[in-house]
Amino acid sequence: MTKEHSMLSPLRIGIAGLGTVGCGTLIVLQRNAELLAARTGRRLDVVAVSMRDMAKPREGDLAGIRVTPDALSLATAGDIDVVVELIGGAEGIARTLVESALAHGKHVVTANKALIARHGAALAACAEAQQVTLAFEAAVAGGIPILAGLRQGLAANRITQVAGILNGTCNYILTTMQQSRRDFAEVLAEAQALGYAEADPAADIDGHDTAHKLAILASLAFGTSPALDAVACAGIRAVTLADIDAAEGFGYRIKLLGLASFGAQGLRQSVQPCLVPLTAPLAAVHGSFNAVEVEADAAGRVVFEGRGAGAAPTASAVISDLMAIARGEHSSPFGIPHARLATPSIAPSADQTGRYYLRLTLRDAPGALADITRVFAQEQVSVHSITQRTLASDASAQVIVITHATTHAAITHARDAIHALAVNLADPLVLPIKG
Amino acid sequence: MTKEHSMLSPLRIGIAGLGTVGCGTLIVLQRNAELLAARTGRRLDVVAVSMRDMAKPREGDLAGIRVTPDALSLATAGDIDVVVELIGGAEGIARTLVESALAHGKHVVTANKALIARHGAALAACAEAQQVTLAFEAAVAGGIPILAGLRQGLAANRITQVAGILNGTCNYILTTMQQSRRDFAEVLAEAQALGYAEADPAADIDGHDTAHKLAILASLAFGTSPALDAVACAGIRAVTLADIDAAEGFGYRIKLLGLASFGAQGLRQSVQPCLVPLTAPLAAVHGSFNAVEVEADAAGRVVFEGRGAGAAPTASAVISDLMAIARGEHSSPFGIPHARLATPSIAPSADQTGRYYLRLTLRDAPGALADITRVFAQEQVSVHSITQRTLASDASAQVIVITHATTHAAITHARDAIHALAVNLADPLVLPIKG
Repeated sequence: MTKEHSMLSPLRIGIAGLGTVGCGTLIVLQRNAELLAARTGRRLDVVAVSMRDMAKPREGDLAGIRVTPDALSLATAGDIDVVVELIGGAEGIARTLVESALAHGKHVVTANKALIARHGAALAACAEAQQVTLAFEAAVAGGIPILAGLRQGLAANRITQVAGILNGTCNYILTTMQQSRRDFAEVLAEAQALGYAEADPAADIDGHDTAHKLAILASLAFGTSPALDAVACAGIRAVTLADIDAAEGFGYRIKLLGLASFGAQGLRQSVQPCLVPLTAPLAAVHGSFNAVEVEADAAGRVVFEGRGAGAAPTASAVISDLMAIARGEHSSPFGIPHARLATPSIAPSADQTGRYYLRLTLRDAPGALADITRVFAQEQVSVHSITQRTLASDASAQVIVITHATTHAAITHARDAIHALAVNLADPLVLPIKG
Repeated sequence: MTKEHSMLSPLRIGIAGLGTVGCGTLIVLQRNAELLAARTGRRLDVVAVSMRDMAKPREGDLAGIRVTPDALSLATAGDIDVVVELIGGAEGIARTLVESALAHGKHVVTANKALIARHGAALAACAEAQQVTLAFEAAVAGGIPILAGLRQGLAANRITQVAGILNGTCNYILTTMQQSRRDFAEVLAEAQALGYAEADPAADIDGHDTAHKLAILASLAFGTSPALDAVACAGIRAVTLADIDAAEGFGYRIKLLGLASFGAQGLRQSVQPCLVPLTAPLAAVHGSFNAVEVEADAAGRVVFEGRGAGAAPTASAVISDLMAIARGEHSSPFGIPHARLATPSIAPSADQTGRYYLRLTLRDAPGALADITRVFAQEQVSVHSITQRTLASDASAQVIVITHATTHAAITHARDAIHALAVNLADPLVLPIKG
């Protein structure tokens, strides 16, 4: 069903956006050119690149490559088979370029998670109508070939759950807090100074970046349209070193997880800090590494770990998509034809069950603990352990609670009731414990 | 380059061998039939199965499926597109069947690691000549899609090293020794009683099973013909609980690793127990799980973890290969055309450098330690730490040595020299430390 190319003609590539990833892609394509040709039976030739700032010096050899400031011209150029979109953003030039390239019968490879999470289903429909490939391995978890893993390696399986450490900045901050025994603000400031975190870190640390990637993962895993707006999203700002220590005492590590599951009640997607058992593979994912854990009906639990960002790992993903196109492989962008992609019903969160970690900050007064335990009894939340620690610096006490399995509704009611108590001094922190 | 099939005609499958994996494959094909059809655009129909013992009861629905005792008949049957070989063994009926099926223009999917490690290059040549697919995802690491990962997901990369926990029985035994604080023989006996280890465990615990899988992995990773006979192979019989404890004290876990690297000096392949840093992903692979760590020039370190054996995980791998065939994807069995597959030169082991763990058993006599340190000085092996522990039960002392980086030649000479000392009471154990 793919367009026929002679096996000997090169695949002609236009790269839109020659920033870090664009340069990395160009460099790896040039460095490994002979190897890639041996593996695909064709040369992968970059014939054109677009860049906004033509004067900026770049890495990579641009000799013999047409350079243009006009990204959109790549979509219509007669000498280009594939447009690689590395501009970014869900709207604007990136979206227009991808739509135009597909409409002009060109394959598209992109690293643009926002674009695919927002408009992936519509773009997949365009690609199918034109019988071209739309591929975006680089949009999720950088160098980890997780989309190929779901689309091909695990294609025999019904997937029931996906859990991912999908943001290297957050995992770096949480790991560094734990290892260097420092608190969030200090580690974030250091990460920003080192260039590991953006000057405006909101997209990373508030979980939105993870949410985009999760929506794409869930779509491929479950055969549903990306449902970004249905991702319940919380970041890591509220996690303290004390939480990390307390969790460790109970045998857990705190990780920002994107979690998606699909069952009889529909799709559930969340991004939030979770307690992961120390013996679980995801607990052993350190620093800026990413990982994705897949629960598959035949294969069982499969975990993929690697670098989720950076020029070369992202280039690896972009080029793997290009190689599949060069080999004439064609699969639906989300694993099944667009027409069969279901609009998922969203499972109600209220009756989702699980165990929870709570950190409460209370006035250190007689009866405070009794107030708390009364709330749990009223909401029928069964407590596994409750630990009080008086803080020397002020007249407050920190209470750490680990619950038995309870419902999301019950724990939410309990949190709200505790928040309203006179003895409560701060927003209670509630984190799920991954089973 | 693949044979053309109408996208609507089913892929017609013949399964040779209806044991555990064969039944598992049949069951998953039937249970997920609708999903698989949605993902490939074709039905995957089992039209025939062969089994040696026709009377034996089987799981899975055989209604409408031709059942024959004659496996070879599948290779010539006009109504079969793909033969799935699940008989096993490097020679005999399995080899004849695969050769015949390829010669008759049928695709072949196999889980047979011995066949591929021994005859994979020749079979790949047959498959290419016939323009059919030979696929064997199930031959290495069961449900982990590692061959697809190398062939597709990481195809953009030059691979420099592969390290794998490839035998679930060994990893189960080592994990159980560590967690239950029991010694090798006791845990092996229990594993045999529970059916986790074979009555004759040699293929697993002496490392041969790992060697077969490593030879296949190395071939795909480096673009070289499988070189099974060049795998230096040692098993886990010599590892004691005391070794596991000593390693843990230095911050390591002992794992049976298949290690392959390819550099200027050629190919290196070994199977042996290694000390892996506790913080490394491979150290966190517990029980019967398998894992493969790949060092890739662009993607960096990528780790795949999952179930390496069992009916359903192996079925997942077999069916992923069938689905690629159903989609008309065709890639060379070892990632590059057979004609370009290099016969690897084997790197000499003598000048390979690394750090080592040694466990020596010495007569508890004055001067024993001086004898040892003199040997290390003579062989120019620099010692990082040396710890002596007198055993209560007899007049022997156990000495644990951790070296700095040294050559394989030097450590081998040192071991031999120690073995010849009058104070030496047992075979010295030498284990490499993974960097």
